[in-house]
Amino acid sequence: MAKKEFSGYKGEALEVIKRVEAEIGDIIRVTKNREVYEGILIPCSEYDNEKYLVIKLKSGYNIGIRITPNTKIEKIGKGAKPAFALPPLAGQNPELPKVAIISTGGTIASRVDYRTGAVRPALTASDLYSVVPELANIARIDTQILFSLFSENITPKHWTKIANATAKQIAEGVDGIVIAHGTDTMAYTAAALSFALQNLPVPVILVGSQRSADRPSSDAATNLIGAVTAAAKAPFAEIAIAMHETPSDNSITLHRGTKVRKCHTSRRDTFKSINTTPIAKIQDQKITMATEDYKKRDQTRKLALKPEFNEKVALLKFYPGMNPTAIDWYVKNEYNGIILEGTGLGHVSEYCFDAIKNAVEHNIVVAMTSQCIWGRVNMNVYNSGRDLLALGVIPLEDMLPETALVKLMWIFGQTKNVEEAKKLLKTNIAGEFSPRTLSEKEGNE
Amino acid sequence: MAKKEFSGYKGEALEVIKRVEAEIGDIIRVTKNREVYEGILIPCSEYDNEKYLVIKLKSGYNIGIRITPNTKIEKIGKGAKPAFALPPLAGQNPELPKVAIISTGGTIASRVDYRTGAVRPALTASDLYSVVPELANIARIDTQILFSLFSENITPKHWTKIANATAKQIAEGVDGIVIAHGTDTMAYTAAALSFALQNLPVPVILVGSQRSADRPSSDAATNLIGAVTAAAKAPFAEIAIAMHETPSDNSITLHRGTKVRKCHTSRRDTFKSINTTPIAKIQDQKITMATEDYKKRDQTRKLALKPEFNEKVALLKFYPGMNPTAIDWYVKNEYNGIILEGTGLGHVSEYCFDAIKNAVEHNIVVAMTSQCIWGRVNMNVYNSGRDLLALGVIPLEDMLPETALVKLMWIFGQTKNVEEAKKLLKTNIAGEFSPRTLSEKEGNE
Repeated sequence: MAKKEFSGYKGEALEVIKRVEAEIGDIIRVTKNREVYEGILIPCSEYDNEKYLVIKLKSGYNIGIRITPNTKIEKIGKGAKPAFALPPLAGQNPELPKVAIISTGGTIASRVDYRTGAVRPALTASDLYSVVPELANIARIDTQILFSLFSENITPKHWTKIANATAKQIAEGVDGIVIAHGTDTMAYTAAALSFALQNLPVPVILVGSQRSADRPSSDAATNLIGAVTAAAKAPFAEIAIAMHETPSDNSITLHRGTKVRKCHTSRRDTFKSINTTPIAKIQDQKITMATEDYKKRDQTRKLALKPEFNEKVALLKFYPGMNPTAIDWYVKNEYNGIILEGTGLGHVSEYCFDAIKNAVEHNIVVAMTSQCIWGRVNMNVYNSGRDLLALGVIPLEDMLPETALVKLMWIFGQTKNVEEAKKLLKTNIAGEFSPRTLSEKEGNE
Repeated sequence: MAKKEFSGYKGEALEVIKRVEAEIGDIIRVTKNREVYEGILIPCSEYDNEKYLVIKLKSGYNIGIRITPNTKIEKIGKGAKPAFALPPLAGQNPELPKVAIISTGGTIASRVDYRTGAVRPALTASDLYSVVPELANIARIDTQILFSLFSENITPKHWTKIANATAKQIAEGVDGIVIAHGTDTMAYTAAALSFALQNLPVPVILVGSQRSADRPSSDAATNLIGAVTAAAKAPFAEIAIAMHETPSDNSITLHRGTKVRKCHTSRRDTFKSINTTPIAKIQDQKITMATEDYKKRDQTRKLALKPEFNEKVALLKFYPGMNPTAIDWYVKNEYNGIILEGTGLGHVSEYCFDAIKNAVEHNIVVAMTSQCIWGRVNMNVYNSGRDLLALGVIPLEDMLPETALVKLMWIFGQTKNVEEAKKLLKTNIAGEFSPRTLSEKEGNE
């Protein structure tokens, strides 16, 4: 008999596994508080590995079950050990759409290797098949590891590389692209790609997972199935983020890349569409469009690749007592643009006006968003707003501050002309502005 | 016959008013799309004054109705002209609790004078009675105009003045205090007062209104009635914000001063309690507590007034491409503290580590919050977080970035000792930290 595999488990958890003569890959049944869970025993990572069993349920969802005195565990089958060999692309079902998965790192790429229990920083096609075998029924999949970074370390230079890698895959004729990415700055990257990859022929779907390495559960599989489904079959050709709709595992929401924000540090449904509805929703691999306002998939369309970004653009969040000479610092350092995250409808204190005036006079593009996050900047209502407009500050309607930052970085990657930059900033390029809603128009909010 | 009063109305709106021989103060009935509205015709301000009629409904709610060809208007009564004389405090019902209203300015203080149609920057007791006569049945009211500022111009120096004015009213034995304040920075001020006014004997309620001068409707009356009710009768003695619970006019929510945020540029229900439940809710002047975790009203309790703030504390929102030498600027300018608004669980890019290390070595208190807004910083999960902890960055759990900024400004108003400052920052002083929820503990979010 081969040596049994218990990757990751220790203490009490290891004991109960040994007691029922199970090992990693076996099918087990856990009964606790009248709930019954059946699935494949998978490795547990570092944290809490003495107290939890981690099971991969049929749904693809991994659940961590705390062992208590009244937890009953049974081995109900020798599982097919999840150690698939990578089927070469040529060997995959030729009738399925072709999807490229580009991995940039993040939790999703670190966690999916349950076979070894090790936290691996890369996502290979082989890892994918071993953890999410359902993918083989959705698409022919080719994977590429572009880099292995947690997303707080992704910079505008990486956005350029991701845009170029995506364009290359599109040129090779894939039916859709999935980009595995850390969730921390995923919305910034989604916005960046929305400007860098215009006139898309196929969908480009960013996906991540919120379950971090110290938690005995993961949303990676469900999110990946959703993202690959969208890349393979969605009728739209836009940049979108695919993540859980709710904390439970029933549905995936597809958010437009310029209108989405990470809104919770740890929940699975952390991403929210802001000031707009999501593009679509996926349940049981079925895509339901949530809007009629989307760009249609058209594989004959020619991509416009504009991957350059300029980092001399700043995002400044205003607060009471903010030192206006902090604004002067950006002038001295020859920045091209400043996105202000003002209060309410788009205000900053009047003691900042001189510094802003000075910035505008130095040909810096200064534009206004709101730290409220929801709603629309309207600088015509109060004197502060009107004064700022008179100083040359550009109101950015309902654009997210993060999207505004990324857009202005992108704009100065395309042009050095300030007037052209202002014009581009006010032009709706990738759905970053939403039209006013009926209730906004009628003042009935 | 005295000259008719049509303050503010022009064009089509003025015509229909004249056609039915109505004037400001008359009771009119408007029928439109099968809906019937009855109430007092009140003046309309600047914007859209040719197309809307503004009616004060019985509920105290002001509604703007767009005039269309199928809008039917009738005059159904000569209204008692809303021009009350100010009853002196001595003449008010002595059995009612005494509430002081301190006005600092903002939309609520600018709009309530419907008698003249003019946008007045101050709130007098006389204005209050003319617009919200219901207040006379809730409390004996004394009003004070502290200043008349839109709240984007409120600075930490104003927080000190508001705290002192509030302490003075408390010393005079009022049963509760209402602070009228612009909504833009109301949450910052609420946090500031939560630290400056400790050991409160009575409730201190901040209130504002979202309906700006260019919209033909206002939430000012409903909010004021809610705030005065809470100040007069609420069983808790804390700093809270009283604003609409939903876009409709049924209920007012009371949010704890350290856990509340303005989350929409224009909606009436813009304020949301973050990472906690609200303290209470008011419907039909009835207060229902939403939590058992509150400090009880006790008029024998002795207020601890600590009104000083130090402005050499910065709030820095991290973003991809952020220039770490911007952090050095605060070191050079001898700041005492920096609140980082990091990504996800509390991260910034590793290229910022040297600048943060340098700041910490210069005795600057550096602490971490999350730009996600919802959720809790947890810097033990990923390497970025652990590295930042090792550099001396203080994780601030589920504290809002804005509250963290205000708290650190307050701390350095109390002490120059860095170790004491760090200790205070980690101490739960005014409910700024929430305990972990059950679902957080079990990882079931």
